[in-house]
Amino acid sequence: MPKKISNEFNVYTLIDKKKKKEKLSPTEIKWFIENYTSGVIADYQMSAMLMAMFIQGMDIQETAALTDAMLESGEQLKFVGKNVIDKHSTGGIGDKASFILAPIAAACGVKVPMIAGRGLGFTGGTVDKIEAIEGFKTALSLKEFQNLLNKNGLVLIGQTPDIAPADRKIYALRDVTATIDSIPLITASIMSKKLAEGANGMVFDIKYGSGAFMKDKKDAKALAKSLIATGKRFKKKGVALITDMNQPLGQAVGHSHEIIESIETLKGNGPEDLTELSLELAAYMVLLAGIDKTIEKARIRVKKTITDGSALEKFKVMLKAQGGNPEVVDDYSLLPIADEHTTLLAPKSGYVKSFVNDKIGLLLIDLGGGRKSKDDEIDHSVGFVFHKKVGDQVKKGDPIMTIVHHASQVNVVAKILEKMNKEVITLSSQKVKPLKMIVDKVI
Amino acid sequence: MPKKISNEFNVYTLIDKKKKKEKLSPTEIKWFIENYTSGVIADYQMSAMLMAMFIQGMDIQETAALTDAMLESGEQLKFVGKNVIDKHSTGGIGDKASFILAPIAAACGVKVPMIAGRGLGFTGGTVDKIEAIEGFKTALSLKEFQNLLNKNGLVLIGQTPDIAPADRKIYALRDVTATIDSIPLITASIMSKKLAEGANGMVFDIKYGSGAFMKDKKDAKALAKSLIATGKRFKKKGVALITDMNQPLGQAVGHSHEIIESIETLKGNGPEDLTELSLELAAYMVLLAGIDKTIEKARIRVKKTITDGSALEKFKVMLKAQGGNPEVVDDYSLLPIADEHTTLLAPKSGYVKSFVNDKIGLLLIDLGGGRKSKDDEIDHSVGFVFHKKVGDQVKKGDPIMTIVHHASQVNVVAKILEKMNKEVITLSSQKVKPLKMIVDKVI
Repeated sequence: MPKKISNEFNVYTLIDKKKKKEKLSPTEIKWFIENYTSGVIADYQMSAMLMAMFIQGMDIQETAALTDAMLESGEQLKFVGKNVIDKHSTGGIGDKASFILAPIAAACGVKVPMIAGRGLGFTGGTVDKIEAIEGFKTALSLKEFQNLLNKNGLVLIGQTPDIAPADRKIYALRDVTATIDSIPLITASIMSKKLAEGANGMVFDIKYGSGAFMKDKKDAKALAKSLIATGKRFKKKGVALITDMNQPLGQAVGHSHEIIESIETLKGNGPEDLTELSLELAAYMVLLAGIDKTIEKARIRVKKTITDGSALEKFKVMLKAQGGNPEVVDDYSLLPIADEHTTLLAPKSGYVKSFVNDKIGLLLIDLGGGRKSKDDEIDHSVGFVFHKKVGDQVKKGDPIMTIVHHASQVNVVAKILEKMNKEVITLSSQKVKPLKMIVDKVI
Repeated sequence: MPKKISNEFNVYTLIDKKKKKEKLSPTEIKWFIENYTSGVIADYQMSAMLMAMFIQGMDIQETAALTDAMLESGEQLKFVGKNVIDKHSTGGIGDKASFILAPIAAACGVKVPMIAGRGLGFTGGTVDKIEAIEGFKTALSLKEFQNLLNKNGLVLIGQTPDIAPADRKIYALRDVTATIDSIPLITASIMSKKLAEGANGMVFDIKYGSGAFMKDKKDAKALAKSLIATGKRFKKKGVALITDMNQPLGQAVGHSHEIIESIETLKGNGPEDLTELSLELAAYMVLLAGIDKTIEKARIRVKKTITDGSALEKFKVMLKAQGGNPEVVDDYSLLPIADEHTTLLAPKSGYVKSFVNDKIGLLLIDLGGGRKSKDDEIDHSVGFVFHKKVGDQVKKGDPIMTIVHHASQVNVVAKILEKMNKEVITLSSQKVKPLKMIVDKVI
C-alpha cells in the first residue's frame, strides 16, 4: 500500500521546475525520491522528471542531494578505520581488473568491500565471471559481508535489494526511457551504492571508447569530475583514472578465460595493459588508505605483492571464504572450458588499426557467454582470446584471435569469425600507434 | 489486450532521438502514437517522450505529423461545401463567445460544428455552461451531430471518445507530468480534434493574460502561428485573433449568468467587449466560408443578424433541436439562479487597475460553480457579476462586483468577498488606460 503523500511539495510543480531548468532544493529532491520509492509518485511522473533532469541538467549540489536521497532509501554500512577503500569501474570488454587489484590492495592492508553487478548490455559482469569458479557464493548477507571484510580484507558479493533500493527502481525506469547516459544520474546511481558500502575512499576506473558506455573521452572526464566532486560532498577521498576501452582489456574475453587471465596476472604473467591498470588502481587504493604517503611508494608496495605471492594468496583466501575451490589457482582444469578452438588468421599483412569493441561483447552473447534476456543462463566455458593489440604488426596468416567454443557451435562460430574479420578488427597497411591505457586522472 | 508491437522502429531509439533534439520523421511519430494508443508503449515511456518533445521542441513538420497521427486514431467527419467553419477558443474567465458567434455565423449561412469541452482548471467549460438550460443534450452521436449541422447550421456537443482518442489519452498524461504548456503539443491536441470535426476553415481565439493558460502575449502569438501553419499543411484556411484575458470577458462569470449574458448580447444588449469579440470572430467565419469577399462586408453582415433578430432565432433553433426550452430566451426564470446577492463596494475612490483573473475562476469553484475533482456536481445557479472594467473610474462605495449565492453560503461568501477585495481587484489613485480586447491577428 502506498503511503499517503506528504503535501510539503507537489509532484507537478517539481517536474515543472526542473523542466524550466530551475534548481531543485535538497528537500525537494529527497521528497520526490522518497515518494517515488514508496510508490506514491507514479512511474510516468518519475520518467518525465528523469527526462527533465537529463536534458536540463543537475548541478553538483542537486547531484549530491539525489545521491543522498537514494543512499538513504536503503541500508548503509559503516566501517571503522580509514583503510576501507572501494573501487568502481564503469565496465568494458575484458575488464577483469577487480579480481587482480582487490587481492593486491588487500595484501597491502587495504580493506576492499566489493558489491558488484552482473552483465549489462554488451559488457560482462564481475559477479557472472567469478561464478565460473564452482561453488563461489556471491549472495551473502550484509552481516556476512562485513564479517568477511574485517577478517580477510576483501569480499565480493552481488548487488542486494537492501542497498539503495531507490536506485534499483530508478535504474530500471531509466533503462527503458532513454535516460541512462546522463552524468548527474549516473553519478547519483554509482555514488549512492558506493557510499552505502561504507568505504572511506573510492578509486574509479572511468572507461571511454567503443567498448565502454562513454564513447567520448570528454564525457568520461566529466563523469570522473562529477564522481569525485560528489564524493567530496560526503567527505570521501577519491581518485579517478580515465582509461582507454577501444580494444579489449588484456587478451581474454569470456568468463573462465578472464578468471584464468586474472590468476596469471596475479602470478606476474599477465598482459601488459591489464597488469599496468590493476597495479595503478591498487596503488591509488593504498595511497587513499593512508598506507603510503606518496603514489611512488604505493606503486613499489603493490608490485611487491605480485613477486612475493601475497596477492595470489589473498585471492585464494577470498575463494575459500566464499565457497570456491582455491586449488583452481593451480589447476585451471577445475574451470569449465569448451573443447574447440577456431582461430582467425590475418587475411593480409599490416598493422592492427582498431577494434569495434562493443561488438565483441555482443558476439560473446551470440556464443552463449552472456545474456540476451534477464533470465538466460550463461555459458562460462566459451570465450575469445585476442592475440594482438592496436599497433601490433601482423603477417598474413598470423593468428589474430581465437574463439573457444563447443563442437556443436560450428555455424555460429563461422558467423562470428566472419564478423570479427569484417566488422570488428581493422588492419592497416600503414604503421599504427599503440593505444595508451591510462590517459588522464582526476583527484 | 495490447497488440504486438511492430518492429519497424524501437521505442528507446525514438525517445533517445528526440532527447538529443533530433527531428522525428512522420512515420516515426505515427508509429509511436499508434503503439501508445493501442497500449503497447507504456505511459512511462510516453511521458519521457512528451518531456523530450516539450523541452527540445518540434518543428512545424513534426507538429503536423503528430496532429495527423492523433487525428487518425479516431473517427473523422467529412462535410461537403466550404462553408463549414469551426471556432476554437483557448478559454478564459467569462468566455461565452461561442454561444453568440455560432448563432450569428449560422444566421449568415455558415455551418458551425461545435465539439466543446468541460471546465478545466480555473476556466469554465462551454458544455457545462449550456447545461444550465434544463434538458439540453450535449451527448449526441456523431450521426446526429452531422444531421443537425446540415439541418440547422449549428450544433453543440461534448467531446466524444470517437474523436482523436490518442489526444484524450495523451492529454491525461500531460496533465500530470507538467507537459501541458508546449506550443507543438497544444497545437497537435487542438488541431487533431478540429480536423476530425471536418471543418474547412477555422477561427481561433487565442487568449493571453492572468485568466488564460498563456500568460504572455508572445506565447499566444506563437501558438496562433503554429495553429495556422499546421492548418495550412492540411489545406485548411484559418484566422487567429490574439485577445486580452486580463479581466473577465463581459460581466458575468458562472453558468446561468453567462447564458443570460449571451442571450442579452444576441439581443443587442451585451457588454461592449463581448459584443466586439463575438462579432469579429463571427465576421472572420463568414469571410472564411466565402460568403463575403472582404472582412468589411462580413462585419456589416454579422451586425445585421443582431438587429434583425436572426441570430437569436438560430440560438432558439439550436436549443429546440437539442432538447432545451427555447422560451428561456424570453424568460430567464427558467434558469437556475441563486437567491442572494452580496456586493463588493469600492473601499476607496480611484480607477480599476487590474484583475488577478485566474483567481476569479478558482473562487467560483469555491462557491460551487466549478469542479474541484472530476466527478463533482456543478451548481449552475451561482456566479459573479463584475460591474467595472480596467480603466473605469469608481467612487468610494460604488458597487464593484456582486456575488450571486445561496443563503446558506454566508461563510464562503465572506471569504470570497475578502479575497476579491484584497487579492483579485486592484484600485489605483491614478488614471488607468482601458485594455484593448483584440490586440493582434494571425492569418
